[in-house]
Amino acid sequence: MMDKKLVETITARDKDFAQWYTDLCIKAELMDYSDAKGFIIYRPYGYAIWENIQKYLDQRFKETGHENVYMPMVISESLFQKEKDHVTGFAPETAFMTTSSGDEGEKLIIRPTSEVLFCQHYSKIVSSYRDLPKKYNQWCSVVRWEKTTRPFLRGKEFLWQEGHTIHRTETEARAETLGMLDIYNNLGKELLAIPFVTGRKTEKEKFAGAVETYAIEALMHDGKALQSGTSHYFGDGFAKAFDIKFQDNDNQVKNVFQTSWGVSTRLIGAVIMVHGDDEGLVLPPYVAPTQIVIIPIQSQRPEVMEASNKMYADLKAAGYRVKLDDSNRTPGWKFAEYEMKGVPVRIEIGPRDLANGQVTITQRHDRSKRTVAIDSVIESMPNVLKAMHDALYEKALAHVTANTFVASTYEDFKVQIEKGGYIKMSVAGEEAELIIKADVQATARVILNEPLITEICPVTGKKATQTILFARAY
Amino acid sequence: MMDKKLVETITARDKDFAQWYTDLCIKAELMDYSDAKGFIIYRPYGYAIWENIQKYLDQRFKETGHENVYMPMVISESLFQKEKDHVTGFAPETAFMTTSSGDEGEKLIIRPTSEVLFCQHYSKIVSSYRDLPKKYNQWCSVVRWEKTTRPFLRGKEFLWQEGHTIHRTETEARAETLGMLDIYNNLGKELLAIPFVTGRKTEKEKFAGAVETYAIEALMHDGKALQSGTSHYFGDGFAKAFDIKFQDNDNQVKNVFQTSWGVSTRLIGAVIMVHGDDEGLVLPPYVAPTQIVIIPIQSQRPEVMEASNKMYADLKAAGYRVKLDDSNRTPGWKFAEYEMKGVPVRIEIGPRDLANGQVTITQRHDRSKRTVAIDSVIESMPNVLKAMHDALYEKALAHVTANTFVASTYEDFKVQIEKGGYIKMSVAGEEAELIIKADVQATARVILNEPLITEICPVTGKKATQTILFARAY
Repeated sequence: MMDKKLVETITARDKDFAQWYTDLCIKAELMDYSDAKGFIIYRPYGYAIWENIQKYLDQRFKETGHENVYMPMVISESLFQKEKDHVTGFAPETAFMTTSSGDEGEKLIIRPTSEVLFCQHYSKIVSSYRDLPKKYNQWCSVVRWEKTTRPFLRGKEFLWQEGHTIHRTETEARAETLGMLDIYNNLGKELLAIPFVTGRKTEKEKFAGAVETYAIEALMHDGKALQSGTSHYFGDGFAKAFDIKFQDNDNQVKNVFQTSWGVSTRLIGAVIMVHGDDEGLVLPPYVAPTQIVIIPIQSQRPEVMEASNKMYADLKAAGYRVKLDDSNRTPGWKFAEYEMKGVPVRIEIGPRDLANGQVTITQRHDRSKRTVAIDSVIESMPNVLKAMHDALYEKALAHVTANTFVASTYEDFKVQIEKGGYIKMSVAGEEAELIIKADVQATARVILNEPLITEICPVTGKKATQTILFARAY
Repeated sequence: MMDKKLVETITARDKDFAQWYTDLCIKAELMDYSDAKGFIIYRPYGYAIWENIQKYLDQRFKETGHENVYMPMVISESLFQKEKDHVTGFAPETAFMTTSSGDEGEKLIIRPTSEVLFCQHYSKIVSSYRDLPKKYNQWCSVVRWEKTTRPFLRGKEFLWQEGHTIHRTETEARAETLGMLDIYNNLGKELLAIPFVTGRKTEKEKFAGAVETYAIEALMHDGKALQSGTSHYFGDGFAKAFDIKFQDNDNQVKNVFQTSWGVSTRLIGAVIMVHGDDEGLVLPPYVAPTQIVIIPIQSQRPEVMEASNKMYADLKAAGYRVKLDDSNRTPGWKFAEYEMKGVPVRIEIGPRDLANGQVTITQRHDRSKRTVAIDSVIESMPNVLKAMHDALYEKALAHVTANTFVASTYEDFKVQIEKGGYIKMSVAGEEAELIIKADVQATARVILNEPLITEICPVTGKKATQTILFARAY
């Protein structure tokens, strides 16, 4: 009989990027669609990427004094409506929890985000400066009733972490906002091999209820940007709406200053679209669920299986995420399968190489192949993985550099935006953003800390005030 | 000014156990109530207990070949209704997800458990014996519309893990059911210091849709039992309802055999009610969020803070979960606070002891106090914690032994049940269970693998068939 899953091909990336992405999500077994429209199943291979992201972040959150909590998944309607900007921003996307008996009392909103739950709780548990700061985080799923959905990028339910902190002073809260942005940026550098651009969002693009929103933005292979995480400074707006007060050591009663910050399973989408190629996924080694796959060639020969088992045991003992595929499928099938799944390192162990004390190593990211002494594999592995990670990061950075443009006229901007990529332009503010969005569907990604390119905004003819990074975005 | 939270006393355990429990949940800062009735907030100290349970179990799940996934939180109504026993069991407690626009299409049930989602997915991804087994687990929250709720024990939303596996043979599926029960039992022995009784549930008490349900049961301090986890063998019932088929290596198309198993944040309730005392929580050392607290005495003296900081750094470097409380509260306040929170080891570092090269160690579980050489603390800590864990386990086991009775008449049973504890009795089956439940609100906890106590069922006068462990239960 045939296997259900044959080696399947995916749409070429440059032919139809959207279809390539969907093909890959399904065929690399990252996710599947569920019966409920807009809700996805996170399959083991996709979920394991998320677990590696969680492990990295959770450790850094705890090292920097954050504690995990779990808030209810529902918010009473009266609580939700306390902060006006926030309600306006989220109300259109909310879903509700109801029962057949109708005994749920006040209308219950299923959390689209949990600011108001944290605010309510903080107002109960904080009274003195000695209770501050409170730095809480939660890992959960949230629900937003999106009209169009795409795997990992936009769904009715997604997994994320949301940090919510309160502080004694504005200075401390602002430092927290930027500190968490920095942790997200390092996640890109150290784990995902993604060079994020970081910066503040414009007034138009900031979070509902925030004073300032900062973001990490990534550039996908197709030239579109993906907002990959945000960190907000709230000032004391929520604190006033929710009456979160404390008595300071000068005996004055004051409102706290607040932040929130989050990243989601959207990061899985970023990894796919930054690194993937026509053969399938390319996973950076530190985030890959399987870092090394061992494939025995002529596995009926005892010396081959013996060496394969030993290699597996040694790599596992050394702390690597390793898989030995000794199934009765052909080597060719296995090569294609693990290329599709983006496993960074493939080790083939066959009788001819073994006779010379060697194995063959193939690197997924550049598809290079070499024979190496079997005794050197373990010792060299840290360098092999490090070099792969660095190469992927550099390649992604080169893509950003090659696709970042400067526009000093709106005509230039409009020509360039059709080619994809980031465009820097100095504009006059929200009026220019609205015109650009209406004309070419591009949006302000972040405000850059860079000198003005032109004195006059090419879009409005008014005095330019900020240099902004624009792109079309997911 | 005063601290918001003074040292508070809790209701005595033997005066009003229910009130003692609630007091402790709130005052040890394990949880708080939310605006939405029946939904609780897991505060950092409570959630950290859950994280330690998760860490223990997740490692064992993965070692035994299980993979984590995440299924949607909603189930379409038609999918939910495919397995009849299952629907009947859960339908009364279900909640729904709706939107203002009503565009959610088919009615969406918020998962009370996810059997049907796993079944549907498995039916899509499995076709050959080579695809088997599939051993998936997920960590999530579920919703059940309970009428009366209690912190951790019964809530409208609770956190849990649910494992769902499919196998080629009945033998393999049965082994999985019992293997996972064993992991849960070891969780009690190795982490929670709780001696579970394990066994099969009666037909009346088994899970909706299961062929057999096995459980871990724990005896609380007040003599009531708490079902603390379950492992189900489903046979091929769900597989037939959901059409989960595979072609075996004999070319026959067959249905898979299936299991599911889960434990929840109810285990936090078990830890509280098995080990706690009138001073507050008593946490077994391996599950305690903070294992050791260091309290400097006369912290204004430089040598005290220097020794305290060194002790903290050394214990942390040795891998312990340690806290140094150098706040400006009094030592007396701190002693009461960490007793309430059940921190296993308290180390006081004061100038007099220090002058003799000593510190004072107080053990929470027996409140014993001794001075020890400061240089011996790190070295002795593994044995100190091990001895505490063992002592707590033995104490809990002695409580079970002292409160397990054998009834050979129904009169004996009825007298004994008022005193609390487990009662063994040999009965004729469901008829006896119904009478007992109606008479004294006790239920069959598990069927015991023990010889019959009496030939005749004392309740019905019919021939006894099984020896059952009864108790009143949460």
